[in-house]
Amino acid sequence: MAEEAAPVSYEDLALIEDEFNDIDLDIMRIQFEKSKEVYQKRAAAVAKIPSFWPLVFEQVPLEIDQFILPQDSRLFAESLVSMEVTRPGIVAGEGEPRSLRFRFEFQPNEDFEDTVLEKSFWYRRAKDGYSGLVSEPVKIHWKKGKDLTQGLSDMAVALFEARKKAGDMTSKSVSEYAPLREKVEHWNGSNTSFFTWFGWVSDRRWISAEESEQANKKEEEKKKQRKEGQTVGEEEPSDEDLDEEDDQDVEVHEAGEQIAVTLAEEIWPKAIEFFTGAQEDEELSELDFEEDDEDMEDEDGPVDIRALVGDQGSKKSKRESGGAPPSKKQKK
Amino acid sequence: MAEEAAPVSYEDLALIEDEFNDIDLDIMRIQFEKSKEVYQKRAAAVAKIPSFWPLVFEQVPLEIDQFILPQDSRLFAESLVSMEVTRPGIVAGEGEPRSLRFRFEFQPNEDFEDTVLEKSFWYRRAKDGYSGLVSEPVKIHWKKGKDLTQGLSDMAVALFEARKKAGDMTSKSVSEYAPLREKVEHWNGSNTSFFTWFGWVSDRRWISAEESEQANKKEEEKKKQRKEGQTVGEEEPSDEDLDEEDDQDVEVHEAGEQIAVTLAEEIWPKAIEFFTGAQEDEELSELDFEEDDEDMEDEDGPVDIRALVGDQGSKKSKRESGGAPPSKKQKK
Repeated sequence: MAEEAAPVSYEDLALIEDEFNDIDLDIMRIQFEKSKEVYQKRAAAVAKIPSFWPLVFEQVPLEIDQFILPQDSRLFAESLVSMEVTRPGIVAGEGEPRSLRFRFEFQPNEDFEDTVLEKSFWYRRAKDGYSGLVSEPVKIHWKKGKDLTQGLSDMAVALFEARKKAGDMTSKSVSEYAPLREKVEHWNGSNTSFFTWFGWVSDRRWISAEESEQANKKEEEKKKQRKEGQTVGEEEPSDEDLDEEDDQDVEVHEAGEQIAVTLAEEIWPKAIEFFTGAQEDEELSELDFEEDDEDMEDEDGPVDIRALVGDQGSKKSKRESGGAPPSKKQKK
Repeated sequence: MAEEAAPVSYEDLALIEDEFNDIDLDIMRIQFEKSKEVYQKRAAAVAKIPSFWPLVFEQVPLEIDQFILPQDSRLFAESLVSMEVTRPGIVAGEGEPRSLRFRFEFQPNEDFEDTVLEKSFWYRRAKDGYSGLVSEPVKIHWKKGKDLTQGLSDMAVALFEARKKAGDMTSKSVSEYAPLREKVEHWNGSNTSFFTWFGWVSDRRWISAEESEQANKKEEEKKKQRKEGQTVGEEEPSDEDLDEEDDQDVEVHEAGEQIAVTLAEEIWPKAIEFFTGAQEDEELSELDFEEDDEDMEDEDGPVDIRALVGDQGSKKSKRESGGAPPSKKQKK
C-alpha cells in the first residue's frame, strides 16, 4: 500500500464518471431504437388479451403498488386498455434518453371523460446543478363526484397555469398557491389515488426547458475543462439555497419520479413476465376446483386468464422467460 | 373489453420474449465493448488510491455485505489491491455476455499464499432447460491455521476434482462427498467467510460446456420452430426431476450466483460512487476534529481518505456523479 506515487484528483475520477455516464446514455438510446419494433409487436399481441394491463398492474412491486388504492385497481380492471412508454427526448437515435412519456388508454368509463391520459417527464438540469425529471400536471376530466384525487390533480393544474400566467413557476403569491398547500398538508401521508401522480410536477421544483438548456451548456463547458485537465470550480449550492428551491409544499404526489422510472425501466420491459406472474397466482388460488376452460368461454364474470392464453401454467423452475406451454386455446 | 377477436397464444408471447432477450444480450455485449477503455482508465486511476477497493467493499449493499464477516473485512483492508470484472464469453463483440470472471489481486499477506484469486462463472443451460451460472471451485492456498473458510473451499476443490476423475460431476459415491455434505450441513446457516464463495459451484448442480452446448442447440431449434409458427412442445421437468438434479447438499456457499451478478452489475460499474460514499461516511464521523490534511502526509495509521483524493466532500444533493470539488491535494 506504500509504493503508489502519482497523484489522483477528484477531477480525474469525475472525468471517468463523465465517460461512464455518456456511455450509459448511449446505451439507453441504442436499446430504445433496437427495441422499438418488438414493443410494437407486443402491443399488437397484448391488445388481443383482455385485461392484460390491469393484470400487470396487479403484479407491480411494492414500490408502485403502495400507491395503487383499491378504487384505482377497480378503475384499472374496468377500463385500462393499454399503457405505452416512449422516450420523447430521443429523435433519430440522438437526444436526451431519460425523458419519458406515458400514454394510458382507457375504455369509456364512469370515472372520467378522458380515454387517453398522457404524461411527459422531462429530464432537466437546474441552474444550481440539480438534475431530474419534471412534468406538467395533466388535467383529468373527472365526472361529477368521481374525482379519486380529492381535487388534488385539478388544483395542481390550476396552480401550474396560474404560475405560467404570472411568469413565475415557483410563485407563492398566486391565489392558487395557499389552498393547494393546505390541501397537500391535509392529504400527504394519508394515501391518495394513483391518479394524483398525473398531477405531479417535480421532486423539488419545476425546471423550464430554457433553464435546463443553459445549465446543460454550463455543465458541458465544465466537462470540457475537466478533459483539458483544468481544475473545475464547482459552485455547490448551500443547504439554504437548496431549501429555497424546494416547492414540495404544493407537490400533490410523493415519489413521482421514482414511479415514472420504475414503470419505464421495470414494468414496461417485463410486462409479459408480470402478466404471467398474475396467471400463476390465479392458478394457485384455483388449484382446488380444476375445471374445463371450454365451459367458461361465454362467461361474463371475472376474467379467467388461463382461458385467455392457454390453460397450462409454466413451472417455477429458473429459466429465461420463453418457456411455452403447448396449449393454444383462447378466449374470443 | 369485448371487441377483441384474433387469438393470441403463449407461443406468440414467448416469441416476443425471445426477441427482447436477444436484444438484452446484444446490449450487454455493446455495453461491454463500449466501456472497456474507460474501465482501463479507471483501473489506472484507482490503482493510485490506496484502499480504494477495500473502501468500496465497506460500502456494498446488504445483499453482499451480509456475507462479509469481520475477518474478511480485515483481510480486504490489509491486502486487497484490486478487483476486476470481465466477461470471458464475449470474443470480438460476439458470444455469451452473461459469463463473468472476477480477478482479485492481493498484497502478500498473512492469510494465504496467493496474490491473485481468479474465479470464472459460466452461463450455461442444462439439458432440462434450466440455465444459470456455474463455476469451478478455486483453490485458495491458506497458510497454516489461517483458513477463514473452515476447510470448506479446500473440500469443494477436492470433491470437484474427484468427480472429474470419476467422470460423474454429480457423483455421491466418491469418498469426498459425504464429509463435505456433513461439513456443509454443519456450517450452513451459521455464516462462513466471504472467501467460501470462491469454492461455490452452482445454485443447483454443475453443468458442463458440452451439456450446455447441446441444450442451447435444442433451445435454438425450438426458437426457430416458434418463429415459423409451430407449436413447440415443452418438456417441462417434473418437480422430482428437479430435485434429483439438486446438488446443494455439498454447495459450500449460498447465493453464489446472486453475489457474482451483484458484484458485476452493481458494484463494478459504480465503484467510484461507492468509494465516494465511504469518504462521505468518514467525513461525517470526523466532523468533530477537523484538521489539516498536510499534517498527515507521512502517517502510517488508518488511511485518511480525505487526504487521498482531496479534502472537500460532495454535497448530498441529487445530481449525477461527476460533481468535482476544487481541491487537488493528494497523499503521495
